[in-house]
Amino acid sequence: MFATMGALGLAPTAEAAAGERRYRAPRAGDFTLTGTAAAEVVVLGGGVAGLATAYELGKAGYRCTVVEARDRTGGRNLTIRGGDTLTDLLGHRQTARFAPGQYMNAGPARMAQWMLTMDYCRELGVPVEVFTNMNADAYIYNESEGMDRPMRYRTAKADMLGYVSELLAKATDSGALDQELTADDRGRLVEFLADYGALGEGFAYTGGSRRGFSVYPGAAGTPGVPYGDLPTASQIFATGVGRYFSFESEFDQAMPMFQPVGGMDAIPRALARAVGGDRIRTGCAVTEVTDKADGVTVTYTRGGRTHVLDADYCVAAMPPNLLAGVRHNLGSAVRSALGGFNPFSAGKIGLEYASRWWESDHRIYGGITETDLDVNQIWHPSHGYHGERGVLMGYYTLDTGADAYAELSPVEREQRAVAAGLRIYGDKYRTELASSFSVHWRQFPYQEAAWHTSLESPDAARYKPLTEPTGRVYFAGDWLSYMDAWQHGAFASARKAVTALHQRVLATRR
Amino acid sequence: MFATMGALGLAPTAEAAAGERRYRAPRAGDFTLTGTAAAEVVVLGGGVAGLATAYELGKAGYRCTVVEARDRTGGRNLTIRGGDTLTDLLGHRQTARFAPGQYMNAGPARMAQWMLTMDYCRELGVPVEVFTNMNADAYIYNESEGMDRPMRYRTAKADMLGYVSELLAKATDSGALDQELTADDRGRLVEFLADYGALGEGFAYTGGSRRGFSVYPGAAGTPGVPYGDLPTASQIFATGVGRYFSFESEFDQAMPMFQPVGGMDAIPRALARAVGGDRIRTGCAVTEVTDKADGVTVTYTRGGRTHVLDADYCVAAMPPNLLAGVRHNLGSAVRSALGGFNPFSAGKIGLEYASRWWESDHRIYGGITETDLDVNQIWHPSHGYHGERGVLMGYYTLDTGADAYAELSPVEREQRAVAAGLRIYGDKYRTELASSFSVHWRQFPYQEAAWHTSLESPDAARYKPLTEPTGRVYFAGDWLSYMDAWQHGAFASARKAVTALHQRVLATRR
Repeated sequence: MFATMGALGLAPTAEAAAGERRYRAPRAGDFTLTGTAAAEVVVLGGGVAGLATAYELGKAGYRCTVVEARDRTGGRNLTIRGGDTLTDLLGHRQTARFAPGQYMNAGPARMAQWMLTMDYCRELGVPVEVFTNMNADAYIYNESEGMDRPMRYRTAKADMLGYVSELLAKATDSGALDQELTADDRGRLVEFLADYGALGEGFAYTGGSRRGFSVYPGAAGTPGVPYGDLPTASQIFATGVGRYFSFESEFDQAMPMFQPVGGMDAIPRALARAVGGDRIRTGCAVTEVTDKADGVTVTYTRGGRTHVLDADYCVAAMPPNLLAGVRHNLGSAVRSALGGFNPFSAGKIGLEYASRWWESDHRIYGGITETDLDVNQIWHPSHGYHGERGVLMGYYTLDTGADAYAELSPVEREQRAVAAGLRIYGDKYRTELASSFSVHWRQFPYQEAAWHTSLESPDAARYKPLTEPTGRVYFAGDWLSYMDAWQHGAFASARKAVTALHQRVLATRR
Repeated sequence: MFATMGALGLAPTAEAAAGERRYRAPRAGDFTLTGTAAAEVVVLGGGVAGLATAYELGKAGYRCTVVEARDRTGGRNLTIRGGDTLTDLLGHRQTARFAPGQYMNAGPARMAQWMLTMDYCRELGVPVEVFTNMNADAYIYNESEGMDRPMRYRTAKADMLGYVSELLAKATDSGALDQELTADDRGRLVEFLADYGALGEGFAYTGGSRRGFSVYPGAAGTPGVPYGDLPTASQIFATGVGRYFSFESEFDQAMPMFQPVGGMDAIPRALARAVGGDRIRTGCAVTEVTDKADGVTVTYTRGGRTHVLDADYCVAAMPPNLLAGVRHNLGSAVRSALGGFNPFSAGKIGLEYASRWWESDHRIYGGITETDLDVNQIWHPSHGYHGERGVLMGYYTLDTGADAYAELSPVEREQRAVAAGLRIYGDKYRTELASSFSVHWRQFPYQEAAWHTSLESPDAARYKPLTEPTGRVYFAGDWLSYMDAWQHGAFASARKAVTALHQRVLATRR
């Protein structure tokens, strides 16, 4: 219920670096803790929530230490570039062979304009560009429902909404809604439907230019050839294409969406720079957290050796499924609460192509193809338009579908993904392929989840030991927000945790 | 009928220049005339059609001379930057005071991914970025229809489509469509409507998250506050908000749309560079065209002096309304055909602001606000996100509405536009204003039209003397295409003209 299909970066490209150099952040932080304090805080986890915690506390004068198990910060905010390596928990090893400038955002890949993530981009001077979350010319292909070829999104939409408008206009005109609507209402409704559905004589939907063209309108002599094969209402209903149309109206997915220029990891890189490299310890796996009357002791291992870190407070911003495996003296309520988050699977494969044939041949610049094949979705890149190469997201798989792909070797994943894409896009999906890289978060070291499902809201009583401090330990993460799986949730949760911590510290001093 | 509300560039910004330097065009032209020829061609008009004509003919070995009345090429493709000046035909003088890096595209401002304009950007190495042609968080404000405050596009859409879905689902469920649809059809339709309209129990539309939030969902304790005040079906129908929803489904306007990085005039600048400055004569107003048995003589004035240019062929790529005023010996059919294009008015005002309050305060990044006020539309800039300043398009007026604004002084235009915007956006629409610049194409020297309306298709018999050569004179322009008012139409028409000319030259040589 609290899992969304939503949002899940390493060295910058030349373009991104140029963008960041010329970019000047226009103002200081929107979020500022009032009054300064000098307590020591240990932050468990160097993902977005952990970095944001250390960043905000640092602005207020706290001395933070971020303890991160992996050799890099960012958590699920991961951008894969050429040379990056990954060995997953099933033992599959990969090294990315993407050409310079090519990348895939393996975790979160988009931000809505209202999200806190945008504010952090502004504050940190990370330039943003539009993420093309929908494209009228991307395809829909529901093979299991009898479609024998893909349909453009715009064609499917024109037909579905055309027939829906026709049916309602006719019902209204025939008096079927006379009880529900006044004559004025009916007149306005029918006028709307005629325009919205592109209806003709007698409220009939008979296709039209919104369906798209096989030959585009041009000069005199070339009026254009609209797509033929207008389906009947019954036929278009049976394809199931309509199920994809509400996506663009969702409050977290509606256009325009955005992405940092050069890769999503520009955000954790900027946060880590602001926090300071000397405040971040990577390669340190937390094994124990001990809450005491006057502080917190955190034990971690690095390179096989055990280290102990003492601080005044702790903010635990690790994945709940991994935090559950850390020894602690926080009590059974914390244990039970951490058990209420179930790790969810998702996986993505980046298919690098030697040409951008989807732009030149299919006239698709960005956007998402929807399908009932096991690849689920195919994403066209929202950057590098007209460039020489590009990385398609060949699948965005979820749940058991993701795990089935995860069990395959990287080569098998690629082969299976390409076999699916071939049926939609034709031969170049295979012949132009240059390299691939796949990431499955349930099988990813020190993550083991793409995000977490929860049967209750974050404000449910069972989660109170996490949404409020337990002893001197605070918790933060997207999983403790109403926007789990989104960086917005991680930022919001971090702000809540540091606000509470800071209020306590200031109150204690008085 | 053939006029659309569609598309209507001077020195590059530092950003654009950086973008162009780092950009490498990936391939040669899609369009290539086969075989080379060395005829002399005079091209009348240095707009997009004229420049494309000279560019393509130049690739095939022709020696072209472009004769342009103004001191710059590009025609209606005009990007206004600080320091640019304009004196319109009513005597209104303006000098743009936009800050460095700020600009407005006064003419065409967007391109669909399928348009030839995109191919020329690729071929010429002009980098493109997304033009945000719609935004779920932009406003709709139909004051004359009783709205007392603006409504977010997403809220209006959720309500209209919610009630439409409810009405049709209930009608279907109650048996009113049993004659039209099978039981399977009805089941699928109702399933679609429940999702598409976000319907609840008993197919009732009761609002929901798609309407948007006054407080965004955040951490635990902050589930978000959805917009209240759910209107009834009757109330939302009465606002007329639904009339704007089909725009995003139009084949020439559906997202994603694009724009060149740094200003639309990157296209004519790149074309002019490719043609060669020595082939372009600016400040030359054509006064006479004489078609002869062995060539064409063109007479023009420059700085009060008359010049004569002889060539083998002529391609007339001037606006038809101005071409109609040039003396020629092409006959009455040409005269009559040129008379069949009626100049249409459109005007835009760029409002430069000292802050991007629409992003920070309204969370609107790009996109169009629709209104029934006399400003018609307000466009949020699709570039410079998070920057220190930005230029809003304060009106995009059409027809008599545009002429009414044109008659005002530039200061009065600004005042009137700001008064309208204030009612939608509040005080910052006035207090943050830094400067403005307005362009009205019907009153623009050597254009005198935003585009042209025509009662017949370009393939109508009366236009044949223009869509086919008359003597040694060919014609080109968006007005001779099925995509008038779009650069795509100008490119398509130029390709048609040069293909016909080249075939004739090659045939003549044999």
